[in-house]
Amino acid sequence: MPDHVTRLHFGGDYNPEQWPRDVWVEDMALMRRAGVDTVTIGVFSWALLEPREGEYDAAWLDDVVGMLDEAEVGFFLATPTASPPPWFTRAHPDALPVRPDGTRLTHGSRDTYAISAPAYRQAARRVARFLAERYGDHPRLRGWHVHNEYGTLDHGPHAEAAFRSWLRRRYGTLAALNDAWCTAFWSQHYGDWADITPPRATQYLANPAQVVDFRRFSSDEMLAAFLEQKAEIRAAGSAAPVTTNFMLPTWNHLDQWAWREHLDLVSVDHYLDTTGPDGEAHVAYGADLTRSWAGGPWLLMEQSASGIRVGDRQAFKDPDRMIRNSLGYVARGSQGALFFQWRASLGGAETWHSALVPHAGADSRVFDGAVRLGALLDRIGEVAAPPADGPVVEADAAVLWDANGWWSLETSHLPHDGLDYASEVRATHRALWRAGVAVDFVPPGGDVSRHRVLFVPSHMAMDAGTAAWLARYVESGGHLVVGRFTGVADEHQRVVPGGYPGVLRDLLGVRVEELRPLGDGETLALSDGSVVEQWTERVHLAGAEPVATYAEGDLAGGPAVTRRAVGSGSVTYLSTRLVQRSLDRFVASLLAEHGVAAAVPAAVGTGVEAVRRRAASGSYLFLLHHGDRAVRVKGPGLDLVEDARTDDGIVLEPGQVAVVREDEAAAAWSVTPL
Amino acid sequence: MPDHVTRLHFGGDYNPEQWPRDVWVEDMALMRRAGVDTVTIGVFSWALLEPREGEYDAAWLDDVVGMLDEAEVGFFLATPTASPPPWFTRAHPDALPVRPDGTRLTHGSRDTYAISAPAYRQAARRVARFLAERYGDHPRLRGWHVHNEYGTLDHGPHAEAAFRSWLRRRYGTLAALNDAWCTAFWSQHYGDWADITPPRATQYLANPAQVVDFRRFSSDEMLAAFLEQKAEIRAAGSAAPVTTNFMLPTWNHLDQWAWREHLDLVSVDHYLDTTGPDGEAHVAYGADLTRSWAGGPWLLMEQSASGIRVGDRQAFKDPDRMIRNSLGYVARGSQGALFFQWRASLGGAETWHSALVPHAGADSRVFDGAVRLGALLDRIGEVAAPPADGPVVEADAAVLWDANGWWSLETSHLPHDGLDYASEVRATHRALWRAGVAVDFVPPGGDVSRHRVLFVPSHMAMDAGTAAWLARYVESGGHLVVGRFTGVADEHQRVVPGGYPGVLRDLLGVRVEELRPLGDGETLALSDGSVVEQWTERVHLAGAEPVATYAEGDLAGGPAVTRRAVGSGSVTYLSTRLVQRSLDRFVASLLAEHGVAAAVPAAVGTGVEAVRRRAASGSYLFLLHHGDRAVRVKGPGLDLVEDARTDDGIVLEPGQVAVVREDEAAAAWSVTPL
Amino acid sequence: MPDHVTRLHFGGDYNPEQWPRDVWVEDMALMRRAGVDTVTIGVFSWALLEPREGEYDAAWLDDVVGMLDEAEVGFFLATPTASPPPWFTRAHPDALPVRPDGTRLTHGSRDTYAISAPAYRQAARRVARFLAERYGDHPRLRGWHVHNEYGTLDHGPHAEAAFRSWLRRRYGTLAALNDAWCTAFWSQHYGDWADITPPRATQYLANPAQVVDFRRFSSDEMLAAFLEQKAEIRAAGSAAPVTTNFMLPTWNHLDQWAWREHLDLVSVDHYLDTTGPDGEAHVAYGADLTRSWAGGPWLLMEQSASGIRVGDRQAFKDPDRMIRNSLGYVARGSQGALFFQWRASLGGAETWHSALVPHAGADSRVFDGAVRLGALLDRIGEVAAPPADGPVVEADAAVLWDANGWWSLETSHLPHDGLDYASEVRATHRALWRAGVAVDFVPPGGDVSRHRVLFVPSHMAMDAGTAAWLARYVESGGHLVVGRFTGVADEHQRVVPGGYPGVLRDLLGVRVEELRPLGDGETLALSDGSVVEQWTERVHLAGAEPVATYAEGDLAGGPAVTRRAVGSGSVTYLSTRLVQRSLDRFVASLLAEHGVAAAVPAAVGTGVEAVRRRAASGSYLFLLHHGDRAVRVKGPGLDLVEDARTDDGIVLEPGQVAVVREDEAAAAWSVTPL
Repeated sequence: MPDHVTRLHFGGDYNPEQWPRDVWVEDMALMRRAGVDTVTIGVFSWALLEPREGEYDAAWLDDVVGMLDEAEVGFFLATPTASPPPWFTRAHPDALPVRPDGTRLTHGSRDTYAISAPAYRQAARRVARFLAERYGDHPRLRGWHVHNEYGTLDHGPHAEAAFRSWLRRRYGTLAALNDAWCTAFWSQHYGDWADITPPRATQYLANPAQVVDFRRFSSDEMLAAFLEQKAEIRAAGSAAPVTTNFMLPTWNHLDQWAWREHLDLVSVDHYLDTTGPDGEAHVAYGADLTRSWAGGPWLLMEQSASGIRVGDRQAFKDPDRMIRNSLGYVARGSQGALFFQWRASLGGAETWHSALVPHAGADSRVFDGAVRLGALLDRIGEVAAPPADGPVVEADAAVLWDANGWWSLETSHLPHDGLDYASEVRATHRALWRAGVAVDFVPPGGDVSRHRVLFVPSHMAMDAGTAAWLARYVESGGHLVVGRFTGVADEHQRVVPGGYPGVLRDLLGVRVEELRPLGDGETLALSDGSVVEQWTERVHLAGAEPVATYAEGDLAGGPAVTRRAVGSGSVTYLSTRLVQRSLDRFVASLLAEHGVAAAVPAAVGTGVEAVRRRAASGSYLFLLHHGDRAVRVKGPGLDLVEDARTDDGIVLEPGQVAVVREDEAAAAWSVTPL
Repeated sequence: MPDHVTRLHFGGDYNPEQWPRDVWVEDMALMRRAGVDTVTIGVFSWALLEPREGEYDAAWLDDVVGMLDEAEVGFFLATPTASPPPWFTRAHPDALPVRPDGTRLTHGSRDTYAISAPAYRQAARRVARFLAERYGDHPRLRGWHVHNEYGTLDHGPHAEAAFRSWLRRRYGTLAALNDAWCTAFWSQHYGDWADITPPRATQYLANPAQVVDFRRFSSDEMLAAFLEQKAEIRAAGSAAPVTTNFMLPTWNHLDQWAWREHLDLVSVDHYLDTTGPDGEAHVAYGADLTRSWAGGPWLLMEQSASGIRVGDRQAFKDPDRMIRNSLGYVARGSQGALFFQWRASLGGAETWHSALVPHAGADSRVFDGAVRLGALLDRIGEVAAPPADGPVVEADAAVLWDANGWWSLETSHLPHDGLDYASEVRATHRALWRAGVAVDFVPPGGDVSRHRVLFVPSHMAMDAGTAAWLARYVESGGHLVVGRFTGVADEHQRVVPGGYPGVLRDLLGVRVEELRPLGDGETLALSDGSVVEQWTERVHLAGAEPVATYAEGDLAGGPAVTRRAVGSGSVTYLSTRLVQRSLDRFVASLLAEHGVAAAVPAAVGTGVEAVRRRAASGSYLFLLHHGDRAVRVKGPGLDLVEDARTDDGIVLEPGQVAVVREDEAAAAWSVTPL
Repeated sequence: MPDHVTRLHFGGDYNPEQWPRDVWVEDMALMRRAGVDTVTIGVFSWALLEPREGEYDAAWLDDVVGMLDEAEVGFFLATPTASPPPWFTRAHPDALPVRPDGTRLTHGSRDTYAISAPAYRQAARRVARFLAERYGDHPRLRGWHVHNEYGTLDHGPHAEAAFRSWLRRRYGTLAALNDAWCTAFWSQHYGDWADITPPRATQYLANPAQVVDFRRFSSDEMLAAFLEQKAEIRAAGSAAPVTTNFMLPTWNHLDQWAWREHLDLVSVDHYLDTTGPDGEAHVAYGADLTRSWAGGPWLLMEQSASGIRVGDRQAFKDPDRMIRNSLGYVARGSQGALFFQWRASLGGAETWHSALVPHAGADSRVFDGAVRLGALLDRIGEVAAPPADGPVVEADAAVLWDANGWWSLETSHLPHDGLDYASEVRATHRALWRAGVAVDFVPPGGDVSRHRVLFVPSHMAMDAGTAAWLARYVESGGHLVVGRFTGVADEHQRVVPGGYPGVLRDLLGVRVEELRPLGDGETLALSDGSVVEQWTERVHLAGAEPVATYAEGDLAGGPAVTRRAVGSGSVTYLSTRLVQRSLDRFVASLLAEHGVAAAVPAAVGTGVEAVRRRAASGSYLFLLHHGDRAVRVKGPGLDLVEDARTDDGIVLEPGQVAVVREDEAAAAWSVTPL
């Protein structure tokens, strides 16, 4: 986060090239009305910026920038490289991505590039350089938005060559690769680097180590492409912060922890995937994850203004919810709330994607909501300045997050194909969110010195370093909770034999002899009344104590949840999948035991989400009322939203929000339903 | 319809090439027994007619034609171009169709041709010419059946070139195309015509305007191919009527309204898709649609004799139902009832397709049914001669039908992917059919001067001309009913901003601010007791009156159904999807209000379908009893089926039919369950 | 079966190349502990055996063989040709298999070979020769395991050429082929052999005769490849028995009856597909089928040690069940119980496939089970020596089994797509198994002289020879039961007209006029209380008597099950699908009527499966208790498992087994629940 950021940004993707100039004039007026101070321009504008190969035309963009300048609106400038123009296909057919079955994709949508193709990389560098030279020192330039949502996988010849180089660097020798990939299985031993390819259409199951390495390679390859653009920007003399927008919740193409050090600003696009009450837990998940990637303040680069894509439809998101969600992100460190997009497109493939200015125009509840949000962000702008020291959000609980964990669980023919990394992590986070506590995500080996509890959900493949780090955590007094099917294999998906989970067996004090997945819809009770599904294990105690046993089925009487005390620390093992309500109870009890308290304990169960954000000027309590019954909130502070003291209590109606500058950080708050 | 048609045709596709000659002899005898007077020959016979490229052999066909002549059976002669022979693949590999992912299809089935390939077009013209020269003036030739069910889409290089030419003609300039296609979105701006391709495999969503234009192009390209064959036929001196068989219900490859003027006879293949009682509504739908395309009498070229393909099985259709269905078509203007096919194939991919002579042979209920139908058509033959003036069926209600509407709703990422054009149109038609009224379909801009009510179901993309035409209809006293998601966009799928539905906002007197699709299984009640599903909208009145409001949910109290009076006309807007029973009630009430009566009001609800057909010799009332309880029908006329006066009433048993020559057209009929 | 086989084999696939040598040492010790006497080595080891084309390296294999020799463990040696090494792809890209859509597959999994490619065939012969020369006379060599689970289909150019040659041999002339394939339909007439291809991507439905012939060709082509390897083995002077492992239950790539004469030993891989009680019926099915293919003793080459793949998960199979299942195979003639695999892989695509030595190691219930099974097989080893004459299992009931039946029902657009050959056969076998009787499978034209009843389930396409054979069976006093949709077509899927089932009409004494499939979930009652589903027919009696009639629906009163007496024989026709419980009742009643008794009538319904195996030293009764209530079993004999006389009864606890050497074969046994 650049030091000069001292206010919350409001705005979103702005694509004036889709409209005639008179609409631009209205845009400027409406932006001022809504308090928009930041837009992102240039995403997907390559075809206009470089209408013919090597010929650039930015007159229109000059015009846009000029109008923004006059309107006092800052901008992120995107390099347009996520979508090569139609002419690129004809000029460089080899630079288009290829599917595993050999189908070469073509233009007509977006994101159609072969990330490893020299022609693509060169063209991308050139257009980035052009933009950097032209706009790199513009006073309204808030930062560089390189590319958009990196994520196109390519299995073609250029990827093949680059993958091989990557593997050579990773493994050094073919022997090491053969060993890591277990190529003795199914006659896959490689005798020549030249025989190695990306995963391609084949007769039966692919080699899982090859598949996961290809995902790692692809992330690294995209990072290299990103760094080339960043280098061009710097070479052109632009000192503005550089970011690229990560994508949540369903994309898993990048190892974000490896990217973070190269980003001046971590930003994310986040789209809800449910219209139910779980949407708010999802906001918290996305925000906590991105703040953790960033290691501090970050920026919500895209969210939807009024739509939630659920299954086969575009469900409507109410303005009040949009505002509460926006504050959910800000409360967790976002330096603002940006949207895709400013004005709804009239054509193209995302015509029905929502926007701050909807098809109905400014005379709409949606735009009214934007105006309200703009004003609100203005009133609470002081939260933006980061605290002199310490984290922007203080969390005592942490969850391990690792792209490798996701990739591993996507390989085929695991003991249960229903294993889903993101679902596991989100279930754990959901339980923590419902308990009202703040959560950090951490990378393997990350700093967990302040976290009293650390959760590691279903992290199948784990290297020895990570295992040692977890052991140190426990030995230092931490409380570790390990989910099933974690550490059963090393970083190459090679099972560590002798009893699961081989990598963590000694630490957990258990030895699992058998994995026993359950069928669809099958559930079992544990001795403590918990209900489990999908998975059970035959667990032998080897130093651990049983916390709960299986109460039914073949394993009845056998340990289901175990704990091993290590000095003042402990490690708990869940050998099964608790259904969410049982997981909620388990987590709440564990937090209570280890003294991890909710931000505002009185808020839990009232429908009010309470989140505390630290800033230069003090501690701020965000109160977001998702419930359906008014409450009175009382405590020492000043609600910036209404500019009212809260000492004698304020009433929060359903849907409303308050942002309180607390008189003291640890003050007691009451929340009373009316 | 050629003037010389004065009787109803009976017969079907005849493929003697599949049998030895002794079977042909039996065929002739059986045809005479069943009263078959018309067959279609030559469909899919290319490989026999042209066994080697440029070498024709029609001796076998001469033989067939000779036998038909002797048996006094007329024939439609098909050009066999829907299925190039195996040799064609090797001779012209470039003339095979290509899928969007580049897969080039090959022979081994049927319909494997690249419609834009010069080699294919030339070969098709040549074989058509050969047939026309040989049989063009045969006295038994009823007409030319060009090709079969046009519909193979090709995305290959020939299609690419032809698509570009078509676009050049349509748009003139690249600027116009870029504007229409909104290529500013996602960097799709075209700087060179040469960069434009058909929709092909790409990374993400395709451009919807490109997709719809490709459908339009494909229809036009197939029409051009048809016209080339027609020209060859005429050049060879044949004056026989030329048709091609359209296909219902699931094919949507052609813009039939654009084809109609080029057809001397409109014909259709129609296959039911349900075994339930809705099959009869489906017959009516297919017949009304085809009669409307034809603008008068038409011909049912194919139906199944005893099978209904439902999901994964071939359900049996009883002979009584086959007869009732056949009369359902004839009642609505078909000049007969032809079938696919005469005799069931013993091998090949459609071995289990039913036929008039089933595998079991002539000793069968199915063939008995054929004999009964043949006799019945003979007895009612006088209905075939068209009336001197006026329509063959008088309908006061009309429904807009437009292939563009279908294509538009098949683009991706609409607000609800469950939107289905054919379902919407059929739901409306079903409600009208259940009300017992006659229905016309009309094209945009069609003649609706006689229609008291006009329905426009979910016609998303609408040009200004169509909107003006609808306005004129209302201003002239018509009663227009507009379904949700109609006219929200122009003909290029570009949303008209300012509130939906932009194209029709002023006419409807509403402004829709928000589209709010519902989830699967979610329903809501309206204030009038109707039940709605799938879709709701936030509607603002701007001249219209509310007819019903939402009684539940976020929009409770808001308008759901509105009406705006315009002089003696009116326009009603349905902002939601009524479940069928509510739609039935809504439509019935609307018809009553506007004086649109059932053909025989007393028949409604008795299980008896009553349809009136006008002919040179008077008015004919078709009474088809689909119910399960006998009725007495009474009125002034003569039942041609039993050759009995109906003045004192006749009894119709379940399953039976009557065709009454009415003493007067508007007579009163009673229908009394027994 | 080689004569020298006099004991039961125990062991499984052994892939030491996946582990360091110290694990091999442990392997030998554990094998001795478990009583393993037979392993299969070399499967999928091509890449190690021939690291570069033409360069062989078997030092590691020498080492393995030496250690096995020292440990006194015999081995099957596999030729590794099921999985060409990575170098093969680059050296011979034309020798990789091609999908119908033209996608050429590549290495990275297994089974990626084009069976007709000369380069592949040559490379396979060469490596087989190398192994045969090196190990062909090794004293521990139990036999050759050529390839693995033949089954990769190729639709590429080499397959095209070979398919044509095969068709030329089969049909002689194009005229014959055109006739057999009914190419008059859809313009598919071939004028040149060069136009014939394998089934490939095409626009619509494929020609079913072409599809089935391609399956026949593929089986023959794989057999030819097998025979080439066998010839190399023999040419190298090795006299060891040669086998290849067939695959059950889902693979249907081979016509096993055509292979049997070329195999010195018939072996099979069999994997259960359900965790429910039907698993035991499935064991019996696989065992009866393989014994029938073998015509005597055979070998279970692979089963899983503790896992059952069910849908999306790897369900756990308990050691007791594993033992019972193993005995289920042995009881039906298997010369042992081999497993895939000895030791669970730590990496690769089948990491989670179970093994005798699981990931948890030898300290596990799974390995304990292996030890128990090893000891048990040792105790009952005397059953292995085949009887001097007569079958190893005496069965009075037989079921026709034919790969062509399966292939035929996999063609598209049959009257009901839910027709599934394997399901039909298994349903019939299940009913017989539940009745406790022994079952043989027979090929068309096979020896059925000893079988009192013969079932022919849903065998759509049948040649005249098979029909004549069935007629002779009945005329000789046999009782034949023919399932619906059997013999409706000849061997080219050409319907025999005149009433179904044309091929068998006279024999059955019925004439079926209409096929009337039912909808999903639709059931009907018969007059005898049976319940039927999926399918009904309008049946006319023409010599047969009705056994049961349809009690409901359109066909009410019409024959559903018929019987025709022919001398002392009879033929029963089932025109519908009995739900399993009705089929069970039907079959039980039929068996009773025809004097086909259960092995131990008293066992039926007690949970105890009783199977009798004949050996040189007498008759052996296998008693496998799958139920949940202990029973007392009493009869004249000696239980080899407990070495206890059974005259006064022994108690079998749930899950337990007994193998009794009977004092006399036909003795009476009592089984009494406790």
